[in-house]
Amino acid sequence: MPIDVRPRVSSKHVPVKDSTLDPSRITQEDLTVRRLAGRRYLNPELAQKDDVATLGCFKNEVEYVMYDPRPQKNITSTFPMSMNRFVMELASARANVHFNPANTTIGIVTCGGLCPGLNDVIRSITLTAIRTYGVKRVIGFRYGYWGLSAAGRDTAQELTTETVRYIHRYGGTMLGSSRGPQPASEIVDTLEKLGVNILFTVGGDGTQKGSIRIAEEARRRNLDVAVLGIPKTIDNDLSFSHRTFGFETAVEQACVAIRAAHSEASSHMFGIGIVKVMGRESGFIAAQSTISSSQASLCFIPENPVSREVVLNLIKRRFELSTYCVIVVAEGFGQDWADCSGAPTDASGNKKLMDIGVEMKHLVEGFLKKNKALYPQSTVKYIDPSYTIRACAPNASDAAFCTNLSTLAVHEAMSGATDCIISMRYNQFILVPIKAAVSIRKMVDTRGMLWRMVREVTIDLSNDAASAQKRELQRELQTVSVKRESIINALSKL
Amino acid sequence: MPIDVRPRVSSKHVPVKDSTLDPSRITQEDLTVRRLAGRRYLNPELAQKDDVATLGCFKNEVEYVMYDPRPQKNITSTFPMSMNRFVMELASARANVHFNPANTTIGIVTCGGLCPGLNDVIRSITLTAIRTYGVKRVIGFRYGYWGLSAAGRDTAQELTTETVRYIHRYGGTMLGSSRGPQPASEIVDTLEKLGVNILFTVGGDGTQKGSIRIAEEARRRNLDVAVLGIPKTIDNDLSFSHRTFGFETAVEQACVAIRAAHSEASSHMFGIGIVKVMGRESGFIAAQSTISSSQASLCFIPENPVSREVVLNLIKRRFELSTYCVIVVAEGFGQDWADCSGAPTDASGNKKLMDIGVEMKHLVEGFLKKNKALYPQSTVKYIDPSYTIRACAPNASDAAFCTNLSTLAVHEAMSGATDCIISMRYNQFILVPIKAAVSIRKMVDTRGMLWRMVREVTIDLSNDAASAQKRELQRELQTVSVKRESIINALSKL
Amino acid sequence: MPIDVRPRVSSKHVPVKDSTLDPSRITQEDLTVRRLAGRRYLNPELAQKDDVATLGCFKNEVEYVMYDPRPQKNITSTFPMSMNRFVMELASARANVHFNPANTTIGIVTCGGLCPGLNDVIRSITLTAIRTYGVKRVIGFRYGYWGLSAAGRDTAQELTTETVRYIHRYGGTMLGSSRGPQPASEIVDTLEKLGVNILFTVGGDGTQKGSIRIAEEARRRNLDVAVLGIPKTIDNDLSFSHRTFGFETAVEQACVAIRAAHSEASSHMFGIGIVKVMGRESGFIAAQSTISSSQASLCFIPENPVSREVVLNLIKRRFELSTYCVIVVAEGFGQDWADCSGAPTDASGNKKLMDIGVEMKHLVEGFLKKNKALYPQSTVKYIDPSYTIRACAPNASDAAFCTNLSTLAVHEAMSGATDCIISMRYNQFILVPIKAAVSIRKMVDTRGMLWRMVREVTIDLSNDAASAQKRELQRELQTVSVKRESIINALSKL
Amino acid sequence: MPIDVRPRVSSKHVPVKDSTLDPSRITQEDLTVRRLAGRRYLNPELAQKDDVATLGCFKNEVEYVMYDPRPQKNITSTFPMSMNRFVMELASARANVHFNPANTTIGIVTCGGLCPGLNDVIRSITLTAIRTYGVKRVIGFRYGYWGLSAAGRDTAQELTTETVRYIHRYGGTMLGSSRGPQPASEIVDTLEKLGVNILFTVGGDGTQKGSIRIAEEARRRNLDVAVLGIPKTIDNDLSFSHRTFGFETAVEQACVAIRAAHSEASSHMFGIGIVKVMGRESGFIAAQSTISSSQASLCFIPENPVSREVVLNLIKRRFELSTYCVIVVAEGFGQDWADCSGAPTDASGNKKLMDIGVEMKHLVEGFLKKNKALYPQSTVKYIDPSYTIRACAPNASDAAFCTNLSTLAVHEAMSGATDCIISMRYNQFILVPIKAAVSIRKMVDTRGMLWRMVREVTIDLSNDAASAQKRELQRELQTVSVKRESIINALSKL
Repeated sequence: MPIDVRPRVSSKHVPVKDSTLDPSRITQEDLTVRRLAGRRYLNPELAQKDDVATLGCFKNEVEYVMYDPRPQKNITSTFPMSMNRFVMELASARANVHFNPANTTIGIVTCGGLCPGLNDVIRSITLTAIRTYGVKRVIGFRYGYWGLSAAGRDTAQELTTETVRYIHRYGGTMLGSSRGPQPASEIVDTLEKLGVNILFTVGGDGTQKGSIRIAEEARRRNLDVAVLGIPKTIDNDLSFSHRTFGFETAVEQACVAIRAAHSEASSHMFGIGIVKVMGRESGFIAAQSTISSSQASLCFIPENPVSREVVLNLIKRRFELSTYCVIVVAEGFGQDWADCSGAPTDASGNKKLMDIGVEMKHLVEGFLKKNKALYPQSTVKYIDPSYTIRACAPNASDAAFCTNLSTLAVHEAMSGATDCIISMRYNQFILVPIKAAVSIRKMVDTRGMLWRMVREVTIDLSNDAASAQKRELQRELQTVSVKRESIINALSKL
Repeated sequence: MPIDVRPRVSSKHVPVKDSTLDPSRITQEDLTVRRLAGRRYLNPELAQKDDVATLGCFKNEVEYVMYDPRPQKNITSTFPMSMNRFVMELASARANVHFNPANTTIGIVTCGGLCPGLNDVIRSITLTAIRTYGVKRVIGFRYGYWGLSAAGRDTAQELTTETVRYIHRYGGTMLGSSRGPQPASEIVDTLEKLGVNILFTVGGDGTQKGSIRIAEEARRRNLDVAVLGIPKTIDNDLSFSHRTFGFETAVEQACVAIRAAHSEASSHMFGIGIVKVMGRESGFIAAQSTISSSQASLCFIPENPVSREVVLNLIKRRFELSTYCVIVVAEGFGQDWADCSGAPTDASGNKKLMDIGVEMKHLVEGFLKKNKALYPQSTVKYIDPSYTIRACAPNASDAAFCTNLSTLAVHEAMSGATDCIISMRYNQFILVPIKAAVSIRKMVDTRGMLWRMVREVTIDLSNDAASAQKRELQRELQTVSVKRESIINALSKL
Repeated sequence: MPIDVRPRVSSKHVPVKDSTLDPSRITQEDLTVRRLAGRRYLNPELAQKDDVATLGCFKNEVEYVMYDPRPQKNITSTFPMSMNRFVMELASARANVHFNPANTTIGIVTCGGLCPGLNDVIRSITLTAIRTYGVKRVIGFRYGYWGLSAAGRDTAQELTTETVRYIHRYGGTMLGSSRGPQPASEIVDTLEKLGVNILFTVGGDGTQKGSIRIAEEARRRNLDVAVLGIPKTIDNDLSFSHRTFGFETAVEQACVAIRAAHSEASSHMFGIGIVKVMGRESGFIAAQSTISSSQASLCFIPENPVSREVVLNLIKRRFELSTYCVIVVAEGFGQDWADCSGAPTDASGNKKLMDIGVEMKHLVEGFLKKNKALYPQSTVKYIDPSYTIRACAPNASDAAFCTNLSTLAVHEAMSGATDCIISMRYNQFILVPIKAAVSIRKMVDTRGMLWRMVREVTIDLSNDAASAQKRELQRELQTVSVKRESIINALSKL
Repeated sequence: MPIDVRPRVSSKHVPVKDSTLDPSRITQEDLTVRRLAGRRYLNPELAQKDDVATLGCFKNEVEYVMYDPRPQKNITSTFPMSMNRFVMELASARANVHFNPANTTIGIVTCGGLCPGLNDVIRSITLTAIRTYGVKRVIGFRYGYWGLSAAGRDTAQELTTETVRYIHRYGGTMLGSSRGPQPASEIVDTLEKLGVNILFTVGGDGTQKGSIRIAEEARRRNLDVAVLGIPKTIDNDLSFSHRTFGFETAVEQACVAIRAAHSEASSHMFGIGIVKVMGRESGFIAAQSTISSSQASLCFIPENPVSREVVLNLIKRRFELSTYCVIVVAEGFGQDWADCSGAPTDASGNKKLMDIGVEMKHLVEGFLKKNKALYPQSTVKYIDPSYTIRACAPNASDAAFCTNLSTLAVHEAMSGATDCIISMRYNQFILVPIKAAVSIRKMVDTRGMLWRMVREVTIDLSNDAASAQKRELQRELQTVSVKRESIINALSKL
């Protein structure tokens, strides 16, 4: 449905008021937090009457949650700076809105690779905007940021309750997607032309960095535009977050592939099944699906780099216990095996990875060939289920998660939140400033519970080798010093 | 496999030492907590060497997490007593153990109704006990507490890595289950006869109350037996917990039924589809599956009781907007419609409920018949998917959850924890004393985010009726005063 | 999309020529067949050029297949009249068409209960009509024959490639359905008003009897209208047919319920799981899902009526072998248990059945209560998955089947076939005159391979009781004399 | 479970009597058939009493079915030799057995690549042998023919109702598999040592050729051993057969991959999704899953070889109609693109194929790169789901099919059938001599209904290009002359 590209009408904008400096609402002890809290502006004319607020779900008061829910004493002993002095803002439906729904136009854009739940996000944003708020118009931009560029803006389409009715049943994104940035000036031109007040950007790190540029360009032009990010990373490697949409579905699908690999491997003498799963820099899918399936013998992730020799030794050890071996490997593992200097990047700016699945297949085949006498009739089956994993519709859990996430995004955006994303942490939805969210990447803590569990259900990578402990200690130090400090640094500098 | 029923050999028991009174580890501010913390006894002879502890996942230090992660000031304003002074103990793998694995016999029993993941729990306990600790023996008791009674104890079977290898692929429980208590004295006789040191009781409220009686009887006899509960409630209505195993799978399956009801209803003029889901006293499955499916028009839960007239009015309102209507109803809803005084109970002591699904079907059919002129060709399709929901194998998310829960249960029990259950709260596994866990039941907060979301995706139950607000306020008061205070009371009295 | 209700323009109708009497194409030995073959009229002006016919899939010549592919000698010995002298006409894409696509309007109506694949049928008819033939218009009638009646005709909607694009992913029917007949005169009025040349009626026995009345009324008015039936019976009880759409999906879903019943039953001591599946007069779903699941202990179907006592004796026998019992029962079984004289009927004219599932549950519960000492802790779980079975989307096999069936229906209708249905027999699609198809119902041959297989995987109903053989022989005689002769009679009288 | 390797006791063999020469049962017109019919020997001492035979499912009389069920006149006009003079023997449970169950040992071996249903076959053979016949022993040989060789025979394991109870829920084969032949003399040594009377060989062409060698070697040694093949080809390319086990499940799984490819492709501007499915020499999976999914734009199979240019032209044509393109390609397609002389073979003797999936990916990527201006932002996603397809458990339809197939195999083998396989043709189970079955391979008839249907749901490969008709005619001639004549030849020479 082509869009009526009229210049934006009227719109007497309330001067943007940064509530983060509102002395009546902020106390001293909140200050560390408020640096995180993004720009929030209230529009007094649009303040809801009391009866709405008292209905319970629409709140006037902002609530906070501590960054770390452990009591202070535990923490102070370990860290130079107490992390539970940081608090995050809970996302909520707000009794007061900033934008007048009757005049508000909302835009949605989906960027980067597919992820289960994209259509659910589009649908929930659209339905909440139209049904709960009765906004003037919802516009879907096609094929990522390209759809907001000068070249692509004519492809924008209006989204209605009809057009989004059944899209949550499919994988992919009804709006289409693409990789790579587009000039912020062209994008803000588009927003101006179409009168967009709120832009929801659904995408990963690169997309969210783009969100900041768009918001800044809009502010430079003195436009009252809110840009809210819906973080998309199937790898679940978002900081300040315990769960991202699509991750659980991805694990569910990865388990299907692991099950197949197990059937293949166990149906052959010295059969080896290799499953490569997503995880460019973190092994959450690999680790979680190893635990879920309970059928992998070995699990390799980027956070726990080991050499080719160690891989082969682990297979040898497995073959002392069993006649088959199932390997789960995250795509980001083993990148140190090759000389990757000067490796090319894709349109999103991601470094192109060596295909560790194929590499490991060759490694293992070579090993088995050399040891034919020991391992007769051996066979290697390699499964790369990546596109099947990411292109399917979300399971029930992710569907509900997307609905919650997106609905809260609309509520917060209508109340004026901008430059932030919605994420889930300790089972609660919070607002995180984009600048903080993109500053570091979440990784599997190899001393934490997830990796312990992997170690318990697999041939453990570390608990018998002589040098294992030293390596463990180094890793511990690294974890404590690098990872956590980098978070503190990131927070402090904001 | 019949069990060797020898009397328990030797066993020089280390005198039980209650670490909750260890002054070096407990501070004044912890005291409110420690009342929750269960009995923990350490066996110095079995303390692990340092190298294990430093491996990172096996910890010597006990860590805590706050009951409420919101900063104090928010809470003090609302509540007379700050709830974030309560802390819960994080469950963990322990470097020091209380039981000597080589002499330890572990027992498992599953009680009450089926729940997806029971076999995963049995399997993970068995594998962790055998592989990680190398315990002497794992015994499975058949058909609930009956299998521990004098009548049933001969049916006990030994569990090995072989017998549990593939059981996680099936629904149900390989050990069998039954309802109702058995004499604690007979049960402890059985434990003595078979030399059981640790008993894992997988079951709901009734089962866990039984756990306490067993533990007390064992202490009375001066036996060194740990009883650890794995809480099982498909309804997800456990206090001090955000998630129980099987719940997400149940929601997934409920969505299948809702999808069928939607197909039926929408394929008929004035078609009504009714799906009854589990939820005796709380509507979590109903609410969550309503959100996940995005296809229900109405959702009725026990926490939000409405009259027959309101139900019919909501259907009328729906028929002003659409030609079909999908209703999700929790089994505990509408129990106030009938005079239920003197209602019978089942073997678990649960009150027998009126079948609200059938009741609602009749109500709706009568209504449509009376309004035939308005709603020609109308039809009602009623789906009761309960057994299909609870008897299936867990999805990947629940499978991993069961593995984590059960493995931690073994770790904690080996280190001496008893009289408590493992639960998940704010994304972390914690220990909760059984007495606290069974004292109150978790309910859907009709002012919270879950119910708000339901209201946004359905024909809202409350946002336009004249008397709605008054009802809402009453509910709010009730929620604040009754529910939260009851928690505080429960905690304080321990 | 509302429909342009113009009176039908022009339409110089070619005088209907009944090719069944064309002496050049029919030989003496075909005569018995041709009485079955329906009305076929060719429109010489629209005969395709040779190049189309030679493309191979579009055929000019009509091919036949024998009713019984066994060689004559086997059969003549048993039957007075050789059944392999009957031949059926193979359905095919035709090189010559009767209707000029540019002027042709096609109508579709779906009637009766839901069945997996209804949307696939609507979609394939629409796409073939538009893409392959480029017909003028495709009209969908809403809610069964009601949508063709005077009251309902204004609800008709145009079907385009857009409106049907994704409907095959859902259960139900996008057109809606209803039960019961409507006056043929009103229906033909609608066809005239909208200029419908071909009407596809998707439905069961009652619907197809309606098709005949419509075709006859149209002929009475001298209209050139073809009426083609797409037989819909999830029970797979259509004569002259080995498979109907939705059946395999229904079996797949029934197996899910049986698996749940098996988990429930086997998780309890003397647990009994009962699954009621569809099958009003024939037990194909019950029998096939019993074989597929390999987990049922007993299977009851209408074709093999047994008394309450026999049912309970079989359960007793099962409990001598095992501690649990899974029962599959077709809804039409046990109707002789009750006095059903004067039983009411539904809008389709189907006799309302006693709910054998509930009846059997009560029977079994009473039995277990009376024998509490023998069967302690027994429990009965009853599952009725009917709506979940019929309201889901088809599996891959049924999806392809629907596509083939519907596409051939369009091809045959465009070439002038009328008053017949398309069915599959011996793996080939054939045309069957509706009059023949509705004259008798297919039943499970209790002496055939399907029932033998059921007997091998369950506690057999007949192979040890003293009187079993006599009953078997009677059944054999009945099968041979009644069933086959009734077919011959049906064929001969046409 | 190790096997008791005693030399075979006693065994007064009834002299083998070839019933194919019994003049009282064979007429002149059957002669062409009986050449196909395998060796059948009856053991008069073991003839069942009448009462068994009259029970209906156990038959004494052999029934036949015509090879071609079309009436003669249609055929005689086209073919020099009438094919409906050939008849096939219907498989059945027999009232008379050849082997005395009490002394009979049965062996099972699974060979070659995985296929959904292998475990169902193992299970059904075992259960029928034990439950229905009460045979002495069932032996499973490990890892294909290797398990029957001198090196592998010690790994044989006894199969009981317990060991096979739940195996039908998993993919793979509990016995393991391997490729390649083993010396017939070693295999027959093993059969002699273990006293195996009936060997079931589950495998493809190579395996069945091995079956013949085994049967011949056994006859040479004058052993009374029956060798019965269960044909395994996921490609469904077996002659004299319309369906092989695992095929429908494979199509179901292929559709999942096609759906993912569709989501990927349609979510990108000029997105192309490529799915490679199995089909070394025939495109049944590709064709059927194209129809089932209704989401492929192009389908390439070995039977319809086209050049790289045609492939690219079809993509161009698709991009004139749409912004995305989904391609399904069978692995055997495009092998003529490369010079494959001297290509290596795998252990089963199969020629190693060029990886057409990867090849096509490169081809398409190159094309899009060269036409960047026309197709901006294009992307290619390649999915190879092969191992996921073949390693899963069968769907309900295949599960029932496997049960029927295997049970009939046991019935026929017990009655003395040997040197033949069981297959399904025109919805009936028949016996086919192995020599006939392996003589030719079934292919997709590009003039038949399957391919016509593919052409209707995709961008047709042939109906507009200038030279298409000539190619079509050539293909038609080829089909008629080569394929059918080769069948006749094969039949005649036997």
